[in-house]
Amino acid sequence: MRKIIIGVMGRGENATANDLQNAYTLGQLIAKQGWVLLTGGRNVGVMDAVNKGAKSADGLTIGILPGDYNQDGISPSVDIAIFTDMGNARNNINILTSDVVIACGMGAGTASEIALALKANKQVILLTNDEEGKLFFKKLSPENVHIVESAENAIATAKAILY
Amino acid sequence: MRKIIIGVMGRGENATANDLQNAYTLGQLIAKQGWVLLTGGRNVGVMDAVNKGAKSADGLTIGILPGDYNQDGISPSVDIAIFTDMGNARNNINILTSDVVIACGMGAGTASEIALALKANKQVILLTNDEEGKLFFKKLSPENVHIVESAENAIATAKAILY
Amino acid sequence: MRKIIIGVMGRGENATANDLQNAYTLGQLIAKQGWVLLTGGRNVGVMDAVNKGAKSADGLTIGILPGDYNQDGISPSVDIAIFTDMGNARNNINILTSDVVIACGMGAGTASEIALALKANKQVILLTNDEEGKLFFKKLSPENVHIVESAENAIATAKAILY
Amino acid sequence: MRKIIIGVMGRGENATANDLQNAYTLGQLIAKQGWVLLTGGRNVGVMDAVNKGAKSADGLTIGILPGDYNQDGISPSVDIAIFTDMGNARNNINILTSDVVIACGMGAGTASEIALALKANKQVILLTNDEEGKLFFKKLSPENVHIVESAENAIATAKAILY
Repeated sequence: MRKIIIGVMGRGENATANDLQNAYTLGQLIAKQGWVLLTGGRNVGVMDAVNKGAKSADGLTIGILPGDYNQDGISPSVDIAIFTDMGNARNNINILTSDVVIACGMGAGTASEIALALKANKQVILLTNDEEGKLFFKKLSPENVHIVESAENAIATAKAILY
Repeated sequence: MRKIIIGVMGRGENATANDLQNAYTLGQLIAKQGWVLLTGGRNVGVMDAVNKGAKSADGLTIGILPGDYNQDGISPSVDIAIFTDMGNARNNINILTSDVVIACGMGAGTASEIALALKANKQVILLTNDEEGKLFFKKLSPENVHIVESAENAIATAKAILY
Repeated sequence: MRKIIIGVMGRGENATANDLQNAYTLGQLIAKQGWVLLTGGRNVGVMDAVNKGAKSADGLTIGILPGDYNQDGISPSVDIAIFTDMGNARNNINILTSDVVIACGMGAGTASEIALALKANKQVILLTNDEEGKLFFKKLSPENVHIVESAENAIATAKAILY
Repeated sequence: MRKIIIGVMGRGENATANDLQNAYTLGQLIAKQGWVLLTGGRNVGVMDAVNKGAKSADGLTIGILPGDYNQDGISPSVDIAIFTDMGNARNNINILTSDVVIACGMGAGTASEIALALKANKQVILLTNDEEGKLFFKKLSPENVHIVESAENAIATAKAILY
């Protein structure tokens, strides 16, 4: 039976300490709900932190990797590594596969995932202190963008969307 | 920790009764090994039968779908549905993600997956009575193509490749 | 010998009259420079208008279509129709292929293309009256985002980037 | 107005002298028909030879590259370089975009393109001395596979398909 999948998107190399803390907590809370975690699968930044959080609570984790099976750089906390060899075009798979998309922090890759999610008419939760990003995306899609202030709030919003 | 993923490829609409029986048995045996099953995820033919077999033995099943999340036609035995919206280009993800590829039967889509797997230097197990296909692919890549006569034989060959 | 390709991105269904006028002028000016025009290829909105402009000045036009060759909805002003069958994942091809990316107007798809372009370290020219979008993207990538006020200004900026 | 596009597929690194000669002639003849040539775009093997042939007769050439715009290895005879960054998944774009697909020689990549073309219900012309390949694909799709003995014969067959 199909499992619920929550996608968490965020910076790799330039994630902030605050993003990483939020990501770890998001991972724990997603796992505790019995949801599957989906990320971009790399062993850096938000991707790595949220996977670690999910595994600390015995969650199941999927990584949609940009490279092929020969690459290094997979988060050791990923259970199921999907190799796309599609670079950033895999961002579209990330958001199409997620029942709810949570953006944790902001960057160019994250912005592309938020925008692709809105284009696909998906619900997106923003957990970031990027004020310009919040203004821009909220105006772009008032009904599908949900701005939250904490990981706990993100999970509550995801539950309200799902059930 | 990364799980071992076995991809089973085969016809959707025009699978033979023999293909379907082999697929169901492959699914059961893959699950009993503790491996994750990967397919194209649709609710027809080999994809559906192998997923049913895996679920009958409490396996974990991934479907890499050609369409997006609005589509019908997902096998109800798929646990984790990855939506690519890439049509048959998703065949390359199928084979890159599989630690071993098993072709169960033959058709144009299956042939594309065998060929893409060989191009990516993956090991491929052929369980089919398509004699021309066996001759062609074995000549194309003598070292990476393994011809077997039964589902049990396919699993034994996969174990020899993996361990 | 490789030709210079300029990508023009913008809304399909909900383009404004101002976007369409800018798009038509951009197409004309791109063709007059001897550059090849690249768009998403559909027969609506900015895509269609910019292709019409380019053809009015005898330009060469490429459309990177989201669907396959059976689909309707191709701009009749597209010379070379590339069928990806990848939906919005084709947006990454649009920006990787363009020597310079021009966003004409704003929307979710356009925002995804701007973000993917910045992720790929491409130069992006914004011709839009979406003030939140300009603030957001300029902060995200101050060096690679160029804000302009007219089609003529966009072309002058593209020339400065290219030569 | 949409131009007719003929895709020529064949080996990169391991093309035979016969394949290269056929490819060069195919390129010339395609250009003389006023058709656009599409290939995988790399600077080796059949891809490079057919592009050279087309340019010798003033044709227009498109290369659908597996990598991104930073890569080396583009055939200098490619006019329009489309960067997919999708590896071999770009093979599906090659065949969807081609009005007729010609396989010149045989290899794993070429076999994947033939198979993907047949899956998409495209007409495929085989110009190869791989006897197993001809038997396999002709049986797989008797109506859509056309076996020819020379470049000239391939072009005559393409004309019969197109007009």
